[in-house]
Amino acid sequence: MTQYQRIVLASRPKGPPGLDNFRLETADLPQPGPGEVLMRTIWMSLDPYMRGRMDAAKSYAAPVEVGHTMEAGCVAEVLVSRDERLKAGDIVAGQIGWASHGVAPAKALRRIDPDLAPISTALGVLGMPGHTAFVGLNDILRIQSGETIVVSAATGAVGSLAGQLAKRAGLRVVGVAGGAEKCRYAVDELGYDVCLDHRDPDLKAEMKALTPQGVDCYYENVGGKTLEAVLPRMNDFGRIAVCGMIAWYSGKGIADAMPLPAAWRAILVKRLRVQGFIVFDHMDRLKPFLKEVGPLVKSGAIHYRETVTEGLANAPAAFLKLLEGGNFGKQLVRVGKGP
Amino acid sequence: MTQYQRIVLASRPKGPPGLDNFRLETADLPQPGPGEVLMRTIWMSLDPYMRGRMDAAKSYAAPVEVGHTMEAGCVAEVLVSRDERLKAGDIVAGQIGWASHGVAPAKALRRIDPDLAPISTALGVLGMPGHTAFVGLNDILRIQSGETIVVSAATGAVGSLAGQLAKRAGLRVVGVAGGAEKCRYAVDELGYDVCLDHRDPDLKAEMKALTPQGVDCYYENVGGKTLEAVLPRMNDFGRIAVCGMIAWYSGKGIADAMPLPAAWRAILVKRLRVQGFIVFDHMDRLKPFLKEVGPLVKSGAIHYRETVTEGLANAPAAFLKLLEGGNFGKQLVRVGKGP
Repeated sequence: MTQYQRIVLASRPKGPPGLDNFRLETADLPQPGPGEVLMRTIWMSLDPYMRGRMDAAKSYAAPVEVGHTMEAGCVAEVLVSRDERLKAGDIVAGQIGWASHGVAPAKALRRIDPDLAPISTALGVLGMPGHTAFVGLNDILRIQSGETIVVSAATGAVGSLAGQLAKRAGLRVVGVAGGAEKCRYAVDELGYDVCLDHRDPDLKAEMKALTPQGVDCYYENVGGKTLEAVLPRMNDFGRIAVCGMIAWYSGKGIADAMPLPAAWRAILVKRLRVQGFIVFDHMDRLKPFLKEVGPLVKSGAIHYRETVTEGLANAPAAFLKLLEGGNFGKQLVRVGKGP
Repeated sequence: MTQYQRIVLASRPKGPPGLDNFRLETADLPQPGPGEVLMRTIWMSLDPYMRGRMDAAKSYAAPVEVGHTMEAGCVAEVLVSRDERLKAGDIVAGQIGWASHGVAPAKALRRIDPDLAPISTALGVLGMPGHTAFVGLNDILRIQSGETIVVSAATGAVGSLAGQLAKRAGLRVVGVAGGAEKCRYAVDELGYDVCLDHRDPDLKAEMKALTPQGVDCYYENVGGKTLEAVLPRMNDFGRIAVCGMIAWYSGKGIADAMPLPAAWRAILVKRLRVQGFIVFDHMDRLKPFLKEVGPLVKSGAIHYRETVTEGLANAPAAFLKLLEGGNFGKQLVRVGKGP
């Protein structure tokens, strides 16, 4: 074979993105140089952060250029290796993009042990989202046994692990998710003490009723109405880890969001610490994360759920659905066959 | 003498406070019990935080009840002592309130050395405002040599010391103050590298031009347009110490403030740490502060300025002017004669 498939950013979205912002292309297969490997993608990850890459605005990473391949973390099989650290047949995780094949330096890839857990978990509970949950809890929020934490997007790839790890650490864990089914799953399978539906018009009152000791830590993935319900419940010296704000990514809800002065007043009066973070600044925490959470996944102590979309061509539709909360747990695209 | 004067909260303000929210009263002089002292006030401090005490809303301290004496830090002379730690004639600092006399436990008072510096400084550069500046810089912002800091209310009781200490620590120090005279003073007397006028309609553009390396630390005293000018200039991993938000205390400017999502996005994308603090949580830092800054004030290395209002009866008018930025440096009321 001499060609491969990829999905490029066809145009920048104005308002909520649509299918016409993406384009499926066929291109000549690249060849690996010295120190590089050629891979075929098995699993591709879809994550909310990709929405930010579609805009021209400066973010923590450079935008994807129009006409260039969308970025994504993938699990892949090495086809050709020009580096002694990897050989054909190895399973690796790395940034390949929305593509059936890719070339990358071997040193930028992480070899995956298929015996530890299903290889797809390297994109979810044992990958970037899990690592994010771990850093947010331990390094940003610095959770303490006996505290109350609220986790938004409670059943998502990040939130589902954050909630479980917080519970294991001895916190009261309050989830917020979209819809009754996700809320049931959060409590019955993930072990949340309680889970609220962010679509509930009484969210504020419910949050108040279900956090009788107030809220010490808020793992923020969404912004929007959930943030407005949590902020009044924050205790003195509370911490907010700002990991995402998916409710606002499409521009909806911004005009009627709470005013900044009200949030600023809460930060001052309650002496809150509000801290944004990106997992890529915390790569030194990847090994400690895998060391702690890997065995828990292998033993079945940690639960996770995946939504699988079949075929690269269906990635754009799956991504748009993810932005609306239409996935359940980690959103994956199966691009090729794997072990 | 058997009577004293005090100013009580006559009513809670609706919108900006006015003179009718205060009432001057004469009352019977209280007598000290065991462990207590009776004092006559020499200097009384006026501070922006008092605005919050006038509202019924929960803040970091309980509101002043209607009909009760307004709270204030004061410097006073001991008249009668029923505690061995203090004797008549001693000069002390403590919470007496808007009053000509007061009774307090000796252990809640701090003895002032009149030879170290003018005793009024125990309410300003060597008192709560100075202590606040010290904690904000060292414990919240954790300033580093070579960084750029913005200090709002740059010539105020807190800001003027914050700016000078930051300059001594090797930072580029950008002030924001109200009007050309204060800005000149900030640069010429306090040693700021530059100072911007927050009334300048081009504040945003000026801030951009004068922070070519971006902003690492923001010492936040005001909120409002100053915050909106600083936020876009914050560097990755920047810190904001939220110490006050006087621009919003009267309810003005809230309706047209920047939306919360824009601030939340900056926190996420730039991985900012935004932290509110109150000096009363950091009383363990009072001694280190006095040890470091006391000698600098005595030697004249640190500059400060006071606005003195004569007579307790004029305190309400002086306080209302303070809220509008009409003071210059530390706002004091001379209540009685002193050394």
